[in-house]
Amino acid sequence: MAKLLKGAPVAKFLTEKMQLQAAALTERGITPTLAILRVGERPDDISYEKGAMKRCAQIGVAVKNVILPQDVEYDAFYEKLQEINEDPSVHGILMLRPLPDHLDNEKARQMLRPEKDVDGCTDGSLAAVFTNAKVGFAPCTAQAAIEILDYYHIDCSGKRVVVIGRSLVVGRPVAMLLMHRNATVTVCHTKTVKMAEITKQADILVVCSGRMESIGTKYLREGQVVIDVGIGWNEEKGKLCGDVAFDEAKDLVGAITPVPGGVGTVTTTVLVSHVVEAAARLIPDSDREDIC
Amino acid sequence: MAKLLKGAPVAKFLTEKMQLQAAALTERGITPTLAILRVGERPDDISYEKGAMKRCAQIGVAVKNVILPQDVEYDAFYEKLQEINEDPSVHGILMLRPLPDHLDNEKARQMLRPEKDVDGCTDGSLAAVFTNAKVGFAPCTAQAAIEILDYYHIDCSGKRVVVIGRSLVVGRPVAMLLMHRNATVTVCHTKTVKMAEITKQADILVVCSGRMESIGTKYLREGQVVIDVGIGWNEEKGKLCGDVAFDEAKDLVGAITPVPGGVGTVTTTVLVSHVVEAAARLIPDSDREDIC
Repeated sequence: MAKLLKGAPVAKFLTEKMQLQAAALTERGITPTLAILRVGERPDDISYEKGAMKRCAQIGVAVKNVILPQDVEYDAFYEKLQEINEDPSVHGILMLRPLPDHLDNEKARQMLRPEKDVDGCTDGSLAAVFTNAKVGFAPCTAQAAIEILDYYHIDCSGKRVVVIGRSLVVGRPVAMLLMHRNATVTVCHTKTVKMAEITKQADILVVCSGRMESIGTKYLREGQVVIDVGIGWNEEKGKLCGDVAFDEAKDLVGAITPVPGGVGTVTTTVLVSHVVEAAARLIPDSDREDIC
Repeated sequence: MAKLLKGAPVAKFLTEKMQLQAAALTERGITPTLAILRVGERPDDISYEKGAMKRCAQIGVAVKNVILPQDVEYDAFYEKLQEINEDPSVHGILMLRPLPDHLDNEKARQMLRPEKDVDGCTDGSLAAVFTNAKVGFAPCTAQAAIEILDYYHIDCSGKRVVVIGRSLVVGRPVAMLLMHRNATVTVCHTKTVKMAEITKQADILVVCSGRMESIGTKYLREGQVVIDVGIGWNEEKGKLCGDVAFDEAKDLVGAITPVPGGVGTVTTTVLVSHVVEAAARLIPDSDREDIC
């Protein structure tokens, strides 16, 4: 049976680290603050918002809820977004998406200031993931995969890593983050030929194929570390499943994240840690010893 | 002996294609125009500028030379940059770098408008290479490697591609461009372990290791396509060499770009083609049939 790389202790560790940083910032008169911008009353949005608020409370991050009606006027929405963009008391903005059809998602994404883009969706954040600059933030799920590897002391340097999936929210950014950590990274996707041959060469496999239980023992070998980023409801089994066929994988590989209880458990904590980091970036590096 | 993937016919093909586009644009009253911003009289800069101007003349792209003295005042430099940024008659800006020490390279890079960034150095361009958006332009050398593959009908889809080198000007962007073309891409670098095992699996190998003649037959196998992006002066041999040990590679692999006469031959044409494309983007897609 593989070692289970559970998310809960990673989230706990990150939470405790961030509590200290948030407290140090608050002591200096900077209370890390997340603005959550929600349009309408979609249950998914409300549930995600609640989760984020709970994590904020735990860590000591203030929340400013900005809730606009589903039929908010076009100009009024962008004025409000600009207002929180410019509000110096707000360090991070979580814009719940997709926005209603009458608003322009792309325009909103482009307006958002990268330095407040704790969700890693702006061009500034994505360029920084690519260039390895400290501007904006990596998409939270990609970062959560890295936090898990770090917590369990799985060194990536010189390791062969295969990422299955090339989405902008996970596959591509996680590949870049791992490359910046000196892994030799291969990205597989739907057009990859003889994928099993490639995935079996990986020391670390990050699975974000977007297809439930699609990666079974055919693609795996003994001793591998498997990070399963997928999550979806399996109607047949009546439970949440990842993109890895966990039941067969667990008896072959060396270590694996469970679903649920793996990467997903860490994602919201990463989001809130980005708010703390955004606030900390206001302080010059030379003056940050107590915070970082 | 491997097939030689020479750059000259690629540059010629691209030049002819761009001549037609530039003529069609000029007929519509839009003369594609490149501003070349040079500070001081560095021989390297002047030589590169001359090469670009020659290509511009061939293709039908106008050039606006903006030459500032080596000791230009800080503010005066950025004012001039902003002026050409805002000049509607300028479609592309080539800013010769590095700038003198008293100027701020990073500030200049950030000021440059992505839509005029024909050299692919802004965050907007780099984010677009990562996201596969039509904003800004890919770095010219990375794009030149792709143009060579296209010209010689080397299909990348489903192929295993290994890129040696992870620089921001070549390695990383070329990896992304190839992934967008459905290749399965692995990026190797100085921290890669057992690199020869990995590079031998490649159908297509893009070499931008930055170390002259560092990739010999140890890393290669029969039938591979090798794109050598490196170029440097080999003191010992008294000639220009690439990052591939060409003399031994040429008798093993299936096809290879020579150095000189390979990728480098195409780069300036790509730069000028970006100016034409930047001008063409001013016309709505629906109205561009005669141009693209």
